[in-house]
Amino acid sequence: MRIGELSRRSGVAVPTIKYYLREGLLAPGAPTAANQADYDEEHLRRLRLVRALVDVGGVSVAATREVVEALSGTGLDLITLFGIVHEAVMPRRRTEADTAARARAEEFVAGRGWHVHPESSSLDLLADALAALEALEVTTMLDNLDTYATLAQELAAAEVGSVLGKPDDAQRLELVVLGTVLGERLFSALRLLAHQHESAVQLAQGRRATNPVS
Amino acid sequence: MRIGELSRRSGVAVPTIKYYLREGLLAPGAPTAANQADYDEEHLRRLRLVRALVDVGGVSVAATREVVEALSGTGLDLITLFGIVHEAVMPRRRTEADTAARARAEEFVAGRGWHVHPESSSLDLLADALAALEALEVTTMLDNLDTYATLAQELAAAEVGSVLGKPDDAQRLELVVLGTVLGERLFSALRLLAHQHESAVQLAQGRRATNPVS
Repeated sequence: MRIGELSRRSGVAVPTIKYYLREGLLAPGAPTAANQADYDEEHLRRLRLVRALVDVGGVSVAATREVVEALSGTGLDLITLFGIVHEAVMPRRRTEADTAARARAEEFVAGRGWHVHPESSSLDLLADALAALEALEVTTMLDNLDTYATLAQELAAAEVGSVLGKPDDAQRLELVVLGTVLGERLFSALRLLAHQHESAVQLAQGRRATNPVS
Repeated sequence: MRIGELSRRSGVAVPTIKYYLREGLLAPGAPTAANQADYDEEHLRRLRLVRALVDVGGVSVAATREVVEALSGTGLDLITLFGIVHEAVMPRRRTEADTAARARAEEFVAGRGWHVHPESSSLDLLADALAALEALEVTTMLDNLDTYATLAQELAAAEVGSVLGKPDDAQRLELVVLGTVLGERLFSALRLLAHQHESAVQLAQGRRATNPVS
């Protein structure tokens, strides 16, 4: 298909597609004439993936390029791919995590029996969150740390299980990318909606408990 | 205390504190002399809260101001506060969510029996994620929607329970703010770490299943 049809079918404007081509987020089409190229279903799918990462996931163009390059690589094992995707989509940190908080994060993860790469940015992210909670003395949330970890592990187990259920490598790779980014958005939206519902439910229960119907 | 001590105790540079004062993120200190003011423990705590939102939560200065103003308000009920905090910390959307996806999001939430505000931005966030998954035909994740929702509700129930366990309004309000923002960061970091662990575990199980020890 021509670039106009690619635009129509993906809903992405032609100048944006050209920008993605220049930035290497999309492979060039097969040249058919001067200034014309032919695009196929693979381009359409890749374009939708880029769109999902940039628009819904809020991933930067530079980070999206890293992910797309990883997807085009061959012979990548799943754990390496998870690592690349995680580092790419992680918010960039301005400073190193506090050493004490970082040690506490590593200790917590080891205490759960989790085996993780010692240089994961996720450990810094965890350290930052712990340091902020400690500075503010939000002991309630520190007490709930195991609840957070247990639920995170249940979710991760389901997500990894879905990835491994895919028959071929290309589908697994795509699901790692989309699952990491869109799964986070999905869970985040559902958690905020559930807050609303649970506040209403638990407040009503509290009222019933203190004001029994006579 | 003087601004210098406030800076030393919070780890926030004096020019940054002055910027927060100008932007209304921090209440002015009590004037003691020309160009001098006195700050108390309440200022220190509020400064740490602002820091946690901006640095760890990645919340914008404008959105942080909205949250701080809500915290200073009186007589706010919990559900309203959750609403203000959610709208403030939510990533700003460039466009309206697709109508069909939005209807699907509302239908899903209603199907779970959740009562939520019909104008919640979280519904748009959910609609965006669903629309991206549908466009890419990532049926695996759509099939897992109930798993996401069940775990999100368990987490939200624990978080709301902690908030309601606090004895006074000021503590509840602070926990809603920190819990919403830092809780998301905490969960997000733990999920990514759990992905690493679960990939290793499930791949090893898969290998054992296909290559039984003879």
